[in-house]
Amino acid sequence: MAHVLILGGDGYLGWPTAMYFSKRGYRVTVVDNYFRRNACDELDTGMLYEVPSLVQRAEIWHQATGLEIKVVIADLAQPASMRQLFDGSVGYDWALDPAFGGIPKTIIHYAEQPSAPYSQIDFERADFTIANNLRVTNNLVWAVRDFARDCHIIKLGTMGEYGTPNIDIEEGWLDIEHNGRKGRFLFPRQASSLYHTTKIMDTDLLWYAVRLWDLRVTDLMQGPVYGIETDESLVDARLNTIFNYDEIFGTIVNRFVTQAVAGYPLTVYGAGGQTRGYLNIRDTLQCVHKSEQTPAGAGELRIFNQIMETFSVNQLAEMTQRVGADRGHDVRIEPLENPRKEAEEHYYNPTYQGLIDIGVEPHYLTDEVMAGMFKIVESHRDNIRKEVIFRGVKW
Amino acid sequence: MAHVLILGGDGYLGWPTAMYFSKRGYRVTVVDNYFRRNACDELDTGMLYEVPSLVQRAEIWHQATGLEIKVVIADLAQPASMRQLFDGSVGYDWALDPAFGGIPKTIIHYAEQPSAPYSQIDFERADFTIANNLRVTNNLVWAVRDFARDCHIIKLGTMGEYGTPNIDIEEGWLDIEHNGRKGRFLFPRQASSLYHTTKIMDTDLLWYAVRLWDLRVTDLMQGPVYGIETDESLVDARLNTIFNYDEIFGTIVNRFVTQAVAGYPLTVYGAGGQTRGYLNIRDTLQCVHKSEQTPAGAGELRIFNQIMETFSVNQLAEMTQRVGADRGHDVRIEPLENPRKEAEEHYYNPTYQGLIDIGVEPHYLTDEVMAGMFKIVESHRDNIRKEVIFRGVKW
Repeated sequence: MAHVLILGGDGYLGWPTAMYFSKRGYRVTVVDNYFRRNACDELDTGMLYEVPSLVQRAEIWHQATGLEIKVVIADLAQPASMRQLFDGSVGYDWALDPAFGGIPKTIIHYAEQPSAPYSQIDFERADFTIANNLRVTNNLVWAVRDFARDCHIIKLGTMGEYGTPNIDIEEGWLDIEHNGRKGRFLFPRQASSLYHTTKIMDTDLLWYAVRLWDLRVTDLMQGPVYGIETDESLVDARLNTIFNYDEIFGTIVNRFVTQAVAGYPLTVYGAGGQTRGYLNIRDTLQCVHKSEQTPAGAGELRIFNQIMETFSVNQLAEMTQRVGADRGHDVRIEPLENPRKEAEEHYYNPTYQGLIDIGVEPHYLTDEVMAGMFKIVESHRDNIRKEVIFRGVKW
Repeated sequence: MAHVLILGGDGYLGWPTAMYFSKRGYRVTVVDNYFRRNACDELDTGMLYEVPSLVQRAEIWHQATGLEIKVVIADLAQPASMRQLFDGSVGYDWALDPAFGGIPKTIIHYAEQPSAPYSQIDFERADFTIANNLRVTNNLVWAVRDFARDCHIIKLGTMGEYGTPNIDIEEGWLDIEHNGRKGRFLFPRQASSLYHTTKIMDTDLLWYAVRLWDLRVTDLMQGPVYGIETDESLVDARLNTIFNYDEIFGTIVNRFVTQAVAGYPLTVYGAGGQTRGYLNIRDTLQCVHKSEQTPAGAGELRIFNQIMETFSVNQLAEMTQRVGADRGHDVRIEPLENPRKEAEEHYYNPTYQGLIDIGVEPHYLTDEVMAGMFKIVESHRDNIRKEVIFRGVKW
């Protein structure tokens, strides 16, 4: 089977993606520098449960399934760390077979600082976010250019690149007519955090590399993801993904469910009309897999809007309150002065049909699905540290 | 008079800008890390004449005029190097008065790796270009946010951000109507080199910082600059700006004149129909000065297209041939297989009215102006090294 290289394989999406492909017979290599874990320690963000190291997870996965996920611990912002993955000089931190796994057919690029609040804390975190995210993406496109030009790069972007424009959001591109002449351009982008701005820059860079070297790239404009378990993690609870419930690394649905279980009022910023597209972590895996099965053409930057449905913050808070009440939680909603600079009421009409067209079957956020999340979070209730939930990072 | 801080004050535009403002009574501080000189040494690019160090130039300028230009040698990609310029902890490498020059009223940001071919040489130069250009800009906006929010940032962008679209190029912005709704967005950008792509990313970053922190920013989309002398350099030839005639750091008119003098055929890439906007180095100084005199408002990203006229490569080659012939040079034109990936014939209709509207009076590239450049280059004819002119960096 084909070799899949997953950059950022220790993260919230990285590890479940690795298991998903491994289970389906792919040869899988994961690379990570433990940024997420280190930042969680540094900022004392708390986690719902302990997560074994990437090497330990590969070992547990092997014991549970007999399958191999090769592990490399490396900082991909360093060009040499990226290039070793292609020129065969890499040494594995865990592998059944220490021989080079070969040039990948597909690269899934999650290896970025993924938090908007983290990027806004101070100038040092901003500098890290810019340098890390852009250098990793640039090192990747040069390595593919130099060693593996036919490789398919699947890159995680974000719906946040578009911001909340006053016009309908298309999937990545827009036909523009101006003074009687026509052109097709990247859909205009303007984000609401430094982190999201680095994702715009990534898109600029990928579009350049695709035009210059005829690379194959799929750029997934993903919305906030929620969820914990995936089919692959069910064999051993130690394989569950990293789950943050704090303001820095916790995504909103995960945070709200945890806050509800902990008896911590739901933190709605400002008017709560902020509307975004959401998806279940199971659908992230589906989207990436379907993209892998139908790769972008040579010289194609294919862009999909990776969301399954939209909610406002108020809608999510009300759903959390309703589902929580059914399970005996007294869930309060507490509007806070918005620490972010963003529109609290706005037009929002994104298109998201492309991934459905290549075969993704959405899981929607129903009361039942949210109740399933409640159940898991409740089982870890004693681990929840209320004091790390809200920090008030100002934009 | 107001304090002006010039980042990248040792470069082709930086030093003439420093003298221009100093001569007009401004207090001027220049900062540079000697990237350009070091890269010229490393790549053996040759220079038309030796240029004293930045410290020596400040000393010569002081002797010639009695004026002070404070000098700091520092790498602004390091956050601490940027912040010392605002918090008063900086030590000057040259100054009459070693006391802190104070928070600047205006910052002119040229401190970037400025060469498209340099950014395309290999993955290490690409990595340097990305990391340097983005980190400097990011460090700047955070320092201004933290220490000097009312400062006016004048940032050098490039017309290359727009590429060569099939629609008329506006000054930075475009009103878009889509499905019956309207919005105003950054004009779509898609560049033809990695360097130019970093300038797009800079614009993304500045637009974010302006929206978030109400910064004042003027972003100048400049075309290729030509010229050597400025009024301020006339007092001492050692004050002439750095002049490269090689493919990496030499701009096209400067290169063509030098090639003509050296009897080296003019290197026209491909069909030669590549059309760009150009300006005289004297007009760069005017544009920056007029922008300083009419600063952007708080929360405004003001964008000007900084060109005075357009030429195709063939037109420039023919002008060089004609002017050279008048001065007794036998100038041959030699079309080469294009080492770059770019459109060789294309629509090109940019607007460039904003700088005229605030008072810039263009110097055009006439035969007489080019003859003046020939005269200076001829006086350094013995320094020209033919072997460094063309290197053939492939895109």
